[in-house]
Amino acid sequence: MTPEEFRAYGHRLVDWLADYHASLPGRPVMAKTGPGEIRAALPSAPPTEPEDFGEAIRDLDRIVLPGLTLWQHPRFFGYFPANALLAGILGDLVSTGLGVIGLSWQSSPALTEIEEVVADWMRQMLGLSSSWSGVIQDTASTSTLVALICARERATGYGMARGGLRSQSRRLRVYASEDAHSSVEKGALLAGFGRENIRLVPNDAEFAMRADALAETIGADAANGDCPCAIVATVGATATTANDPVEAIAEIAKRHDVWLHVDAAMAGGAMILPECRSMWDGVEGADSLVVNAHKWLGVPFDCSLYYVRDPERLVRVMSTHPSYLKSAADAEVKNYRDWGVPLGRRFRALKLWFVIREQGVSGLQKRLRRDMANARRLAEMVAAAPEWRVVAPVHLQTVCVRHAPLTSDGAPLDGAALDAHTTAWVDAVNRSGQAYLTPAVIGGRWTARVSIGALSTEAADVDAVWDVMRDAAEAAWAKRAAGLGL
Amino acid sequence: MTPEEFRAYGHRLVDWLADYHASLPGRPVMAKTGPGEIRAALPSAPPTEPEDFGEAIRDLDRIVLPGLTLWQHPRFFGYFPANALLAGILGDLVSTGLGVIGLSWQSSPALTEIEEVVADWMRQMLGLSSSWSGVIQDTASTSTLVALICARERATGYGMARGGLRSQSRRLRVYASEDAHSSVEKGALLAGFGRENIRLVPNDAEFAMRADALAETIGADAANGDCPCAIVATVGATATTANDPVEAIAEIAKRHDVWLHVDAAMAGGAMILPECRSMWDGVEGADSLVVNAHKWLGVPFDCSLYYVRDPERLVRVMSTHPSYLKSAADAEVKNYRDWGVPLGRRFRALKLWFVIREQGVSGLQKRLRRDMANARRLAEMVAAAPEWRVVAPVHLQTVCVRHAPLTSDGAPLDGAALDAHTTAWVDAVNRSGQAYLTPAVIGGRWTARVSIGALSTEAADVDAVWDVMRDAAEAAWAKRAAGLGL
Repeated sequence: MTPEEFRAYGHRLVDWLADYHASLPGRPVMAKTGPGEIRAALPSAPPTEPEDFGEAIRDLDRIVLPGLTLWQHPRFFGYFPANALLAGILGDLVSTGLGVIGLSWQSSPALTEIEEVVADWMRQMLGLSSSWSGVIQDTASTSTLVALICARERATGYGMARGGLRSQSRRLRVYASEDAHSSVEKGALLAGFGRENIRLVPNDAEFAMRADALAETIGADAANGDCPCAIVATVGATATTANDPVEAIAEIAKRHDVWLHVDAAMAGGAMILPECRSMWDGVEGADSLVVNAHKWLGVPFDCSLYYVRDPERLVRVMSTHPSYLKSAADAEVKNYRDWGVPLGRRFRALKLWFVIREQGVSGLQKRLRRDMANARRLAEMVAAAPEWRVVAPVHLQTVCVRHAPLTSDGAPLDGAALDAHTTAWVDAVNRSGQAYLTPAVIGGRWTARVSIGALSTEAADVDAVWDVMRDAAEAAWAKRAAGLGL
Repeated sequence: MTPEEFRAYGHRLVDWLADYHASLPGRPVMAKTGPGEIRAALPSAPPTEPEDFGEAIRDLDRIVLPGLTLWQHPRFFGYFPANALLAGILGDLVSTGLGVIGLSWQSSPALTEIEEVVADWMRQMLGLSSSWSGVIQDTASTSTLVALICARERATGYGMARGGLRSQSRRLRVYASEDAHSSVEKGALLAGFGRENIRLVPNDAEFAMRADALAETIGADAANGDCPCAIVATVGATATTANDPVEAIAEIAKRHDVWLHVDAAMAGGAMILPECRSMWDGVEGADSLVVNAHKWLGVPFDCSLYYVRDPERLVRVMSTHPSYLKSAADAEVKNYRDWGVPLGRRFRALKLWFVIREQGVSGLQKRLRRDMANARRLAEMVAAAPEWRVVAPVHLQTVCVRHAPLTSDGAPLDGAALDAHTTAWVDAVNRSGQAYLTPAVIGGRWTARVSIGALSTEAADVDAVWDVMRDAAEAAWAKRAAGLGL
């Protein structure tokens, strides 16, 4: 492809993407593709000779688009908002198009220094003190793994430089809420702690970690001669957006000299709103912190901000100094390869830079406030409807609901039958193509989650999903009642 | 930004990138920016109100471009080729623009199934048997970390499900060549093995691991009651492109039941050339393997292909099953989140798919052969020049050279003085902006590496860098000789 062909195809694909974004409301949200269908549509062997690039573009419509679940759709209410602001898409285009790699500062100074600046902009936007230093990682899973490895090394006096984890005399324990994200357990297992050493601390009635139970567990472990190594506090749990009491947890961490990592992957974005910051009161007492700019905030995936209080502790664990990476500037600059796992690094800061400039902090704030108002609006409608219930406090933009119709014995549906009903009607919503929800088990029962916050989701879309939900739930219940003779 | 504005700005940025690529030959290769200069050019706080997006685009010329070391430049001979084929840039644009995330198959079926297909295309292109299964990771650093964690778990009977690494009775050892990439040591340290348990096996005269020394070390460890856990064999060492003897190493691995990971991050790309495959003879005896499509092959960073012989061993270590990620299709499909560290995944397969289709296997092969011919051409010129020496075999596209002029006592420059001379003239080449080299320590002495293989590098560029090198080395030597009174 020549630069002139790139120009022509590039214009065509930019137009294709603009049309795609404009066409979203008319498309089914969830892919209707069955397992193996797309694979079967592709040749099983690579082409020996070059193909006409126009064919590849046509396959976007023929094969790719029908096989996508549309995260940017105005009626996408699944998982979490993973927004791709148009300015961020263009920032990422420039990043890829420049084709520079951040192995070291010298290997592309602007890549490193713009990352330093925008990570600090984000710090200010989140209301964090200047004692935090930031870096962009790919995902919160990676950020949390990095945090747990740093905690492990601090607790063992940097045993990595000697016999490693096996040579430790004391058991190292990790603590998290029973509703902590799956990446916390995964990170602890990958870091070598072992499942027996992961302590899941019970929650209170609002699905937040009980600080008293944490204190008790840590105290017992310490008394037993074990080493309390790391606590992961969740701000905005995945299922419910519940908030662990960071301030109380930070005090416990300080008392026992335990590493505190705050997982605010989704909810952290909301900290650009001063009125939300009470959700993580006490965060200044943490050692590390992750906030994904690629979720609600709208920087295209992947862009996970990882902040640490003491970069030396991070660099000590992550740094390498092979001769082929040395440069004259090393002593005066940040080499971000020493702040995470991968050596090679994309110019991710560009998309974050473009997004913040194009939106302004006020533009980002305004949209998040819109989404929170929409969530409150939905919660009120649900709470007012007979047989429907909001089952967790609405802290941000996620509304967790159940439809528990009255059964023939006059009591609301419950137990396994309620689970079956919930998953059936959510599945019907998804199959309809009219909206997309991803349920979760909350307090032991399957629950529908309406995660509001796609860029184009307006109040009308929230009203629409509520209609679709009621229709689906009532139809599922009627079908079930008919089948059961209720 | 509206879709119509996106269209206009998108066209403008595509044009900007086309112009950028066309303008590369006239630009200095290495950034001339000093530490902190770019940071100082940016506001220290984020903008409250939206900015004109045109300003952000203008800053690309004003601030970003002068601050980049240009990996796509025809006279970039540093590190390794990290090519960004134009078709791949467009594939990545579509990936970012679609804004879909591969948390699970259901969350975007095409993302997963196209990845399955193109990872298998790559397998075929590399000449690997059908018993390998592939997945795209970000970098070889991550792939190698994943391999070492899987090795750790297999060796301990999946101790992660119990007390973790600390509860192992035997010391777990990892083996690699003394010239293995820094990511191998880093991965072993992050996985918790501890530096004392990393055995660096000595090399032969051509910088490849000595299989006899490996066998001896492993035998001694086993006799001592330790557990030989993982061997990392390097195909195409970073500094020299040396190749560890994979076949002999695989036999040793089999004999001692040790996990064998093959790090072919750069050189693996060359396995699309049948005439190069003897470089990794015996690879079918490995357990895992990494080849970066984002290096010489030309898929824009990041796109690291990780292959395993037994996906169950990978999934067992990496899988998580929280309720909020379950879907009806789970039993019938691949959920690639269980094949690596991050939960969220970009649609990376698109850029690989576009590159292979637009180039055809033959197009990729032709370019790699051109680069290897250019490397041989340079090596011949260097070998024929008095006082110059090629210090390692030229297996692929990297030529390692030293200029060792005769000193006043009639012997060639050596020792610390040779190191000082080498780094001085390489630094002069880089500062000239006419070419970019990154030196490395090879066999204990600083050496200039000419890593050939940028997309636009032709024979004339190789002739040009050779001229620049000679001028720089002679000038540095003359200056030194004058200063020393030689």
